[in-house]
Amino acid sequence: MNKIPPRTMERLSMYRRILSELEQKGLHFIYSHQLAELASNTSAQVRRDLMEVNCAGIPRRGYRIPELKEKINEFLKDSEEIRVALVGIGNLGRALLSYFNMRSKRLKIVAAFDSDPEKTGRVISGCRTYHVNDLEDVVRRQKISIGIITVGAGSAQKVADMLVEAGICGVLNFAPVPLKMPKTIHNERIDITTSIEKVAYFSGLNKRVQ
Amino acid sequence: MNKIPPRTMERLSMYRRILSELEQKGLHFIYSHQLAELASNTSAQVRRDLMEVNCAGIPRRGYRIPELKEKINEFLKDSEEIRVALVGIGNLGRALLSYFNMRSKRLKIVAAFDSDPEKTGRVISGCRTYHVNDLEDVVRRQKISIGIITVGAGSAQKVADMLVEAGICGVLNFAPVPLKMPKTIHNERIDITTSIEKVAYFSGLNKRVQ
Repeated sequence: MNKIPPRTMERLSMYRRILSELEQKGLHFIYSHQLAELASNTSAQVRRDLMEVNCAGIPRRGYRIPELKEKINEFLKDSEEIRVALVGIGNLGRALLSYFNMRSKRLKIVAAFDSDPEKTGRVISGCRTYHVNDLEDVVRRQKISIGIITVGAGSAQKVADMLVEAGICGVLNFAPVPLKMPKTIHNERIDITTSIEKVAYFSGLNKRVQ
Repeated sequence: MNKIPPRTMERLSMYRRILSELEQKGLHFIYSHQLAELASNTSAQVRRDLMEVNCAGIPRRGYRIPELKEKINEFLKDSEEIRVALVGIGNLGRALLSYFNMRSKRLKIVAAFDSDPEKTGRVISGCRTYHVNDLEDVVRRQKISIGIITVGAGSAQKVADMLVEAGICGVLNFAPVPLKMPKTIHNERIDITTSIEKVAYFSGLNKRVQ
């Protein structure tokens, strides 16, 4: 598969969400300079990106929003549904379950795992929960292709190894450690706590003197 | 204030969380190669970082965990409490309220804002909620220094402008758009949806052909 550059992919993903919001507000058309304004981007960049996805504007009306969204979907070759597993049903895990399964039609967390028997064998935010010992079996049976890791630093690598073993294609890691994985598996990392600590530190808010 | 490089800051923040986890498990000492293993890092890098924070290991026992944590706190000059406001009480906003206020002693979300009167004048996960019209007043009165933005793409810039006007020092932005802000304000961005879309795309899972 011929892959587009990550930055382009990120911009198109952003445009698509901005367009969905505008559509919900009842808008049908948008000019490139308006989309550029909303995306904090230049009109020239937006026009280049939209030319890339093969969408042309209409003189004096701009771009048709539903068409533009569809062209972006085509360009990104979005499949109908991507099945996701989440491992680690703590506060963050629960948060992501309710956040994702309420807003995304395409990306569905269909199974969540934990090692605590108190948290398994239940349904949380519409998602079945299982013991982590059943991970490989459930991931294969349910044709899950992406794993989200929300366990602590000490267990993250072990969980990543289990997901790889179960045949997962990509991982989004919220644990505060980088993971070792085969190069064929795409691996993104988000560290919310470090991000807020960085904001605090670089805003000059850390002032305790010993 | 003399700032350390962002990467060093990120590594120290990571070590600190790994050390807290180990401490909870009852450990008192750690070798640099063990910390390196947990942080997916080299022993040499860990030793350089720990020398930087002025912490020396004990021969044949390694580093004393509580001392190491304290040295990192000192080095990062962490103040006792940083007061945070959250704007946008949707699924993600609620998720962050429950995630943060349960785990962080130092970073506290003390006020949350929304434009929907149904969501304001309440307490959610221990946090008071206010109408966004009261933002400037509440931020000043409560000495809030960091803002977390969890509104949609269309309102994010407006909210950022209000936070800046209210005297905030730093912003963590979860909206899918970059924000224009004065250079004096530290601005970090996390885009969860784009991250998972990137995992899907770069794992080669998007296969729909039109």
